[in-house]
Amino acid sequence: MLFHVTMEVQLPPSMPKDQADALKAEEKALAARLQEEGSWRHLWRVAGQYANVSIFDVPGNEELHALLMSLPLFPYMRIEVTPLCRHPSSVRTGDL
Amino acid sequence: MLFHVTMEVQLPPSMPKDQADALKAEEKALAARLQEEGSWRHLWRVAGQYANVSIFDVPGNEELHALLMSLPLFPYMRIEVTPLCRHPSSVRTGDL
Amino acid sequence: MLFHVTMEVQLPPSMPKDQADALKAEEKALAARLQEEGSWRHLWRVAGQYANVSIFDVPGNEELHALLMSLPLFPYMRIEVTPLCRHPSSVRTGDL
Amino acid sequence: MLFHVTMEVQLPPSMPKDQADALKAEEKALAARLQEEGSWRHLWRVAGQYANVSIFDVPGNEELHALLMSLPLFPYMRIEVTPLCRHPSSVRTGDL
Amino acid sequence: MLFHVTMEVQLPPSMPKDQADALKAEEKALAARLQEEGSWRHLWRVAGQYANVSIFDVPGNEELHALLMSLPLFPYMRIEVTPLCRHPSSVRTGDL
Amino acid sequence: MLFHVTMEVQLPPSMPKDQADALKAEEKALAARLQEEGSWRHLWRVAGQYANVSIFDVPGNEELHALLMSLPLFPYMRIEVTPLCRHPSSVRTGDL
Amino acid sequence: MLFHVTMEVQLPPSMPKDQADALKAEEKALAARLQEEGSWRHLWRVAGQYANVSIFDVPGNEELHALLMSLPLFPYMRIEVTPLCRHPSSVRTGDL
Amino acid sequence: MLFHVTMEVQLPPSMPKDQADALKAEEKALAARLQEEGSWRHLWRVAGQYANVSIFDVPGNEELHALLMSLPLFPYMRIEVTPLCRHPSSVRTGDL
Amino acid sequence: MLFHVTMEVQLPPSMPKDQADALKAEEKALAARLQEEGSWRHLWRVAGQYANVSIFDVPGNEELHALLMSLPLFPYMRIEVTPLCRHPSSVRTGDL
Amino acid sequence: MLFHVTMEVQLPPSMPKDQADALKAEEKALAARLQEEGSWRHLWRVAGQYANVSIFDVPGNEELHALLMSLPLFPYMRIEVTPLCRHPSSVRTGDL
Repeated sequence: MLFHVTMEVQLPPSMPKDQADALKAEEKALAARLQEEGSWRHLWRVAGQYANVSIFDVPGNEELHALLMSLPLFPYMRIEVTPLCRHPSSVRTGDL
Repeated sequence: MLFHVTMEVQLPPSMPKDQADALKAEEKALAARLQEEGSWRHLWRVAGQYANVSIFDVPGNEELHALLMSLPLFPYMRIEVTPLCRHPSSVRTGDL
Repeated sequence: MLFHVTMEVQLPPSMPKDQADALKAEEKALAARLQEEGSWRHLWRVAGQYANVSIFDVPGNEELHALLMSLPLFPYMRIEVTPLCRHPSSVRTGDL
Repeated sequence: MLFHVTMEVQLPPSMPKDQADALKAEEKALAARLQEEGSWRHLWRVAGQYANVSIFDVPGNEELHALLMSLPLFPYMRIEVTPLCRHPSSVRTGDL
Repeated sequence: MLFHVTMEVQLPPSMPKDQADALKAEEKALAARLQEEGSWRHLWRVAGQYANVSIFDVPGNEELHALLMSLPLFPYMRIEVTPLCRHPSSVRTGDL
Repeated sequence: MLFHVTMEVQLPPSMPKDQADALKAEEKALAARLQEEGSWRHLWRVAGQYANVSIFDVPGNEELHALLMSLPLFPYMRIEVTPLCRHPSSVRTGDL
Repeated sequence: MLFHVTMEVQLPPSMPKDQADALKAEEKALAARLQEEGSWRHLWRVAGQYANVSIFDVPGNEELHALLMSLPLFPYMRIEVTPLCRHPSSVRTGDL
Repeated sequence: MLFHVTMEVQLPPSMPKDQADALKAEEKALAARLQEEGSWRHLWRVAGQYANVSIFDVPGNEELHALLMSLPLFPYMRIEVTPLCRHPSSVRTGDL
Repeated sequence: MLFHVTMEVQLPPSMPKDQADALKAEEKALAARLQEEGSWRHLWRVAGQYANVSIFDVPGNEELHALLMSLPLFPYMRIEVTPLCRHPSSVRTGDL
Repeated sequence: MLFHVTMEVQLPPSMPKDQADALKAEEKALAARLQEEGSWRHLWRVAGQYANVSIFDVPGNEELHALLMSLPLFPYMRIEVTPLCRHPSSVRTGDL
């Protein structure tokens, strides 16, 4: 089941650089693993912003929430979720 | 080059059903062709709305505008465009 | 799987009363059937507005969209969908 | 009498983890008691957010306000209240 | 129980003057009766707008909705409802 | 002359409890005096929020501003002012 | 007493040119008279829009509402009113 | 050339009272001088808010920006600029 | 003097194609002339929308308003104007 | 390929003046170099605000993002990007 998720990162200016770097490294490692496992189907950067557009493929709402909560940057992101479904005009087998 | 595009369709209630059906059939045929050619990379329906989320892969802004203008439903859609780029945490070869 | 859905009805003022009444009667009949089947879990009126707040229990996004599309008033409603999940503080067996 | 309430939690980043954990534990205990007593009729998590959607069943506005004010997290939540009533198409005895 | 209600009237420009005048006369008569009965506690005009601010005193949400639905101008108004309660600093016996 | 005023209080989380309590006590005392004098005509709490809806009866804009500026919580409130006038459908002698 | 008023004119596209011209001529004549009498203290056009910014000097809210209601274009304008008062840094005798 | 400017002051709560008082005194002195010179044509307080509505008369955009930048409170204000021009219905010689 | 102007065109769906084509042809001819004369300094299409971003170079607000009012599509456009000035970091002689 | 970019600078009030001055000097030097190289095609100040409107000419989205990320003030700016293309009514050779 597919979900469109936008994430906008807002680290507090007072956070020490070490802590920020550590958080980002953990986030990157987890993102890589989730992409390889297939649940984080797509991940793009929004040009000019510290934000991304993602497509997740998970069994349901519970799994999506658990996944997003597990992201190291979760406490510092504004997240919006939009449930997607098959478009009647889609001919791509990969957009299911 | 990738662009995130949302399209929300608003057909005037006064449009005859024949005309609406013809427009939708033309739109569907063109969407299929553009997906097969590769420029309309992804196409999903937003659950509960007459709207879609799409990813386009085109050489640039000019080509994106020409493509969107050519859609039969263009005059009846509210369109928003967001330029995307490679995310540093992306490990998927397909998100380029 | 649960979804929070708000629906705001906006019938065009020019719609003949007969047609409006017929649409509402069909909507009511379908709403009753879906509630009895269990997919339309809750349905409340927003005080002072021609709008409702609903909770749907469906297998996934596809089924939610198909259900909402099947509503006779769908073309005349502004719909917003929010995916829900189990709250860690919930002790009610019915909110699953 | 039913009310639809959304709560979005925003703990200040500077709050010590001990204090945050204590507040959350108190909130959870009170939420459990209010659900068992029946005034907190439904409680769901919004997928992807530190927020909930709730339905309260209280005698009136005064009791609703007193209840919400008594929540340990009240000073850290953005709350919106919508009064609900019986929907003419509802056939569920539980949505009263 | 008190509710703060704002109503903004938007009559379609195509409505014949006779029909508009009749609606307004019926609205006025009903408003007078409801004020005398006490359920429409206060009624003020917003300066410069075809809108009002009202305070209703009704037994609950159901009665408020039934009352608002019964207004002849209901189909042509944008209505917003805010539940009120006793303010701890209020010393006025009439604001209960 | 009547004005509709909404006030939303936002005390900085860093304010010591003593200082907050002192401010609230002064605010309460002044509110009581202004209600008794008649210039603070109505005062209600918005259910679920640290906010109020008030009606002021003052000679004019200058007096309204001076009154609001004199409130101890003024620096911590978001205030919105709407000028009111007699509604043609009002039959209440008190809404003048 | 001074009020800041913005007016944005939106004539329906279907209004015959004769009717529009007559309305505008009446509006202009009344605006001239009210400026000469002193109640319409200032009147400026917003560059690039069919809108104006005005300052009215009237005895109170009632008179402001009556004046705005009397404008021939009133049914076709979106109006916003902001009550003004003397600025402590003002040294101009005319801004009273 | 006339510009409509709104300024909303937001001093950080942590600013020492001495510093705030000094800034305000400098602002007041400069405002007086600019009013006397004629470039700050009008200055009014918005009732109930720490905000003003101003009309500036300057040779052009450059001069307006330089003037606003020179205000001691500039770093603490949210400013919005609207270019004005002569209204065809204006009969006042002073609104030029 | 430079102004940033955005124009969004919204032709009523009921306008006959002949009339729309004539308006667009006139608009195009005038746009060409104003660009050649230098007052319409830049003109770009917003990708995916029937809208443009323009930079005008005119003596002042009056001339800008007169120019925009003279556009054949003026009655069908939503226009927003932002006054610009020299940026202190600009090294381009053409951005004056 | 052209992009319309707005940047609004928001330096935290707690940043030492030395650090702010250094950041601005670096920003200015880089802006000058990018203008000379041609990628930062236009740069204007928004009158009355610490904000700019810019036009960038870059090979694509990736290059735009890399350029904006390299700005010393990037972490302190709210940035919005709009892709532009050739306007059919443009006759200027420079707007390509």
